Amino acid sequence: MQEKGSISIHTENIFPIIKKFLYSDHEIFLRELVSNAVDATQKLKSLGQLGEFKGELGELKVRVTVDKEARKITISDRGLGMTAEEIKKYINQIAFSGATEFVEKYKEKDAAAKDQIIGQFGLGFYSAFMVAKEVEIWSKSYKDDTLTAHWICDGSTEFTLDEPTGEHAKAERGTDVVLHVAEDSDEFLEEARLKGILTKYCKFLPVEIEFEGEVINQTAPIWTKQPADLTDEDYTKFYQELYPFSEPPLFWIHLNVDYPFNLTGILYFPKVKDELQFQRNKIQLYSRQVFITDEVKDVVPEFLMLLHGVIDSPDIPLNVSRSFLQADGNVRKINSYITKKVADKLAELYRKDRTGFEEKWPDIGLFVKYGMLSDDKFYEKAKDFALVQNVAGKFFTLPEYQEFVQANQKDKNDQTVVLYTTDAEAQHGFIQAAQDRGYDVLKLDAVLDPHFIGQLEQKLEKTSFKRVDADTVGKLIEKDEQTESVLSEDDKTKLQELFKTAVSNEQMQVQVSALSPQDAPVIITVPEFMRRMKDMQRTGGGGMQMFGSLPDSYTVSVNANHPVAQRVLHAEAEAGQKLARQAFDLALLAQNMLKGEALTAFVKRSADLLAAE
Amino acid sequence: MQEKGSISIHTENIFPIIKKFLYSDHEIFLRELVSNAVDATQKLKSLGQLGEFKGELGELKVRVTVDKEARKITISDRGLGMTAEEIKKYINQIAFSGATEFVEKYKEKDAAAKDQIIGQFGLGFYSAFMVAKEVEIWSKSYKDDTLTAHWICDGSTEFTLDEPTGEHAKAERGTDVVLHVAEDSDEFLEEARLKGILTKYCKFLPVEIEFEGEVINQTAPIWTKQPADLTDEDYTKFYQELYPFSEPPLFWIHLNVDYPFNLTGILYFPKVKDELQFQRNKIQLYSRQVFITDEVKDVVPEFLMLLHGVIDSPDIPLNVSRSFLQADGNVRKINSYITKKVADKLAELYRKDRTGFEEKWPDIGLFVKYGMLSDDKFYEKAKDFALVQNVAGKFFTLPEYQEFVQANQKDKNDQTVVLYTTDAEAQHGFIQAAQDRGYDVLKLDAVLDPHFIGQLEQKLEKTSFKRVDADTVGKLIEKDEQTESVLSEDDKTKLQELFKTAVSNEQMQVQVSALSPQDAPVIITVPEFMRRMKDMQRTGGGGMQMFGSLPDSYTVSVNANHPVAQRVLHAEAEAGQKLARQAFDLALLAQNMLKGEALTAFVKRSADLLAAE
Repeated sequence: MQEKGSISIHTENIFPIIKKFLYSDHEIFLRELVSNAVDATQKLKSLGQLGEFKGELGELKVRVTVDKEARKITISDRGLGMTAEEIKKYINQIAFSGATEFVEKYKEKDAAAKDQIIGQFGLGFYSAFMVAKEVEIWSKSYKDDTLTAHWICDGSTEFTLDEPTGEHAKAERGTDVVLHVAEDSDEFLEEARLKGILTKYCKFLPVEIEFEGEVINQTAPIWTKQPADLTDEDYTKFYQELYPFSEPPLFWIHLNVDYPFNLTGILYFPKVKDELQFQRNKIQLYSRQVFITDEVKDVVPEFLMLLHGVIDSPDIPLNVSRSFLQADGNVRKINSYITKKVADKLAELYRKDRTGFEEKWPDIGLFVKYGMLSDDKFYEKAKDFALVQNVAGKFFTLPEYQEFVQANQKDKNDQTVVLYTTDAEAQHGFIQAAQDRGYDVLKLDAVLDPHFIGQLEQKLEKTSFKRVDADTVGKLIEKDEQTESVLSEDDKTKLQELFKTAVSNEQMQVQVSALSPQDAPVIITVPEFMRRMKDMQRTGGGGMQMFGSLPDSYTVSVNANHPVAQRVLHAEAEAGQKLARQAFDLALLAQNMLKGEALTAFVKRSADLLAAE
Repeated sequence: MQEKGSISIHTENIFPIIKKFLYSDHEIFLRELVSNAVDATQKLKSLGQLGEFKGELGELKVRVTVDKEARKITISDRGLGMTAEEIKKYINQIAFSGATEFVEKYKEKDAAAKDQIIGQFGLGFYSAFMVAKEVEIWSKSYKDDTLTAHWICDGSTEFTLDEPTGEHAKAERGTDVVLHVAEDSDEFLEEARLKGILTKYCKFLPVEIEFEGEVINQTAPIWTKQPADLTDEDYTKFYQELYPFSEPPLFWIHLNVDYPFNLTGILYFPKVKDELQFQRNKIQLYSRQVFITDEVKDVVPEFLMLLHGVIDSPDIPLNVSRSFLQADGNVRKINSYITKKVADKLAELYRKDRTGFEEKWPDIGLFVKYGMLSDDKFYEKAKDFALVQNVAGKFFTLPEYQEFVQANQKDKNDQTVVLYTTDAEAQHGFIQAAQDRGYDVLKLDAVLDPHFIGQLEQKLEKTSFKRVDADTVGKLIEKDEQTESVLSEDDKTKLQELFKTAVSNEQMQVQVSALSPQDAPVIITVPEFMRRMKDMQRTGGGGMQMFGSLPDSYTVSVNANHPVAQRVLHAEAEAGQKLARQAFDLALLAQNMLKGEALTAFVKRSADLLAAE
């Protein structure tokens, strides 16, 4: 025996699956039915332009109405309409897409027709059964001398079709789809719910949609127009419509590409008040003006997900699995197109208006750094316009900054040491000490900056970064000169022991250093390498968990050349300890480490002194 | 005309949709095919038990092999097998579920059979085409005198079926499914990838699965056993298998319910090192021992998503939309069953071992509070065993704590005022002052505690909460007694003006108060109400955004009865200002508010004093 045959699908088996599984959100039914109504209207317009329909188009609104009492939702259009024969062909065969056939037939005559048609699979109509226990179609074709077609189906695979005449006949051309809402879908009988769905999905459909006497859409949103025809005001107004309570955007990019894929849209750089806002306003993805989703992961490069705006493309596959999206060639091309456009726009802003660019930097720095970290091509473009800012507020590009510090901040190995602060307020004392020595200090206090620093150290030659409290100021950038200690070796050892006792903390390495008499009597520093390891562990990167929790690591430098050192050495045992402890407390204070009971005691002691003085 | 008819689905139209859209992850194909192989094996075992199959079962392993060169994946079982006729019936008709038919036929004889069968829709087999360009079936039925059936299909709707004999005949009973992997699915030819998928989905399937010579599953995971047959070690060992690098769990709950839904599983209360871990180890959802997902939202109450473990239920609808899940009756029942079981277990632990319960509280407090906040039924059960801890480390239930503080902490309106700290270290000075006055202070420093406090204020009668730095200690709990001021009204006004100048900050309300001479010379407090408003705004709750950013609000209480007040009043203008500023700086320090330049100056000033003394 050898036999060939066809796989078959039995409608009664697959139909329940389609109804339940096809769409993950039931509310989609309204998007699908309104899209169908818009298609029917657009098709009629096409036929009119081609001269195949010679009648009056008249008013072409799509109307959605709800009758809560009668548990009915009706979607009416004045489009093409269908005869009973056409209903048999297009409706009774699930997944026989009328749209596909129409496009095939007319693609020679009207290339634009393809782009105006939403329906793709011919399954959309059946999404009605996700919420309706019974669906009726009343339709009258645009063709002359055709009867009203009336189709009714209760969600089983059986339908009834007739051609009512007389009082039951439909007077006007077009189609009414009537949904008899099922018991478990009461929510869709609420006006507010329906209006919400319409506003979400149909806000920019190209044919007017009327709900409860009000048109809910803009038929020609600005992304469908030419940039030359639009003013700045048009763009900011549209932004306000998309995100009503937001501050005006910083700037925007109008996307418009025909080949090798079709994509229009507007991406806005938001002015961000706080990080919470990032989550709220997402980029909206449309396909031929129908809202699809605001989950644009994979379509938009990850580092640009912080942008706002709309993207409209019929070339993005809808309702498809994530892994499919990632593998899709168009999606990958769209991704790199958007990256390139954004980099070009930023480079242009930088070139044309450096001052304006610097003003915007606090808002766009995060995007740019994120992009540089996650996309090497973007890094290459951005490395010439990415800015850093010092604590005095002055901006530099990376090449400018290297130039700026190289005279003063080269160490004895000819390595440029960039000093930075992660918190200009908390590290104020250390910044002041560095500035007193003529060093410059960068503000690198953003979430991404630790990673950004890592990247710059890899990319820039002979350059390393040190936080300003990584060492005492004399050793931050190692030069050949050295300060002499006024203390003998014996005194240094003695001083070290005295302070070890006062500090009495295993995590603190006490050492006696010959600092300037103008430096503090005691300075606590956090070695750069150990701090980075701790940071990495805290943020969970780099597989550091396996080492267990690293201890904090501090260096306590006792200033041999400060008068306090002499006083501690020559005081009575108890008074010396008290003095050492007070000097150490001040160092803790300067590092924001004097806390809890020790702080309370310090404050109390100081208040008593104040009263007694 | 009136016509009745049937909706039809054309296979060639729907087939591509099924192939692409049915599963969101392509890797699912392996789960489906291995599940089918397990089903075929279980069915044969059932027939053996019923006496319908009288042959030797022999070894029943399911084998998965991959041949990267030949681009083939093979899934072989020694189960029921199929004849050519059966292939026609079960394979060639998509969505004709063999499993359903089998269960129907045997449900009278073997009720357990139903639970052993995974396949539900008859679509699973076709998921093979998500990754294969061609699929072959080689099968030999368990029935005597049947030929080998060989089916082949290239992903179109056309298939070929023959019954090879001689050297091409299959020697052994069972089915081999051979996938010829498509070009875009190379990843599935990697051993490591396949092993990963098998371990993810098939780790606990009831029939041994062999991959590359190694059995990858446990056929009888402990949740399928009776609690009476299990030791604590069994539970902790299973936990280690699920989450290899975790600390042992605190305790667990073995779920086992037959009616009105079917559910087994084990929920573990984890020992949590840090909040990051919450995200990593998720509850795994199984259906008849097949892994489905670790996205258990909607199945498990939200506040219990922090738990770990497994849930196995054939009654949870799979692959269904979220809104469907939320509306599903079984899912809702499962939800409240789990909530109840968890509350009962906690109550039991509390009753049987108060000390152990207290030891666990730091780990379980978050779950319990989250549950109390999000589920009123859970609140009612938990209100008697939920614990609070004071700064001394002692635990109380809510009724115990009310009893404990009521003698000392009732204000003049008979309202109990509970004092708390959100940071025992930062608020140390205020805590000490409260304790010196005989008040108790609770530690309420967890993320959820602000909400928990709000809930307790609503639920507990005549009880309010105040953070320990909400006012000077004498006014935290308003009593009738009052401390007399040693200053005249004139001096008070003068003192207030002097300090206003020293403070010179609009956000700080300076007032002169008659505090105890033992209190600090100046105290900065944060009024409870304003602080809560700020907190609420910061966390984005309560629609507070509309008021704009609230300013910080502080009260500066100058202690009229402290010696420093006298010194400031009677000093020379400049010296008085210096003294007032130093006293104010100490108050800022005690509130962790002395920062940046002001702190650097304070430290420098103090170091100079130290050197000069």
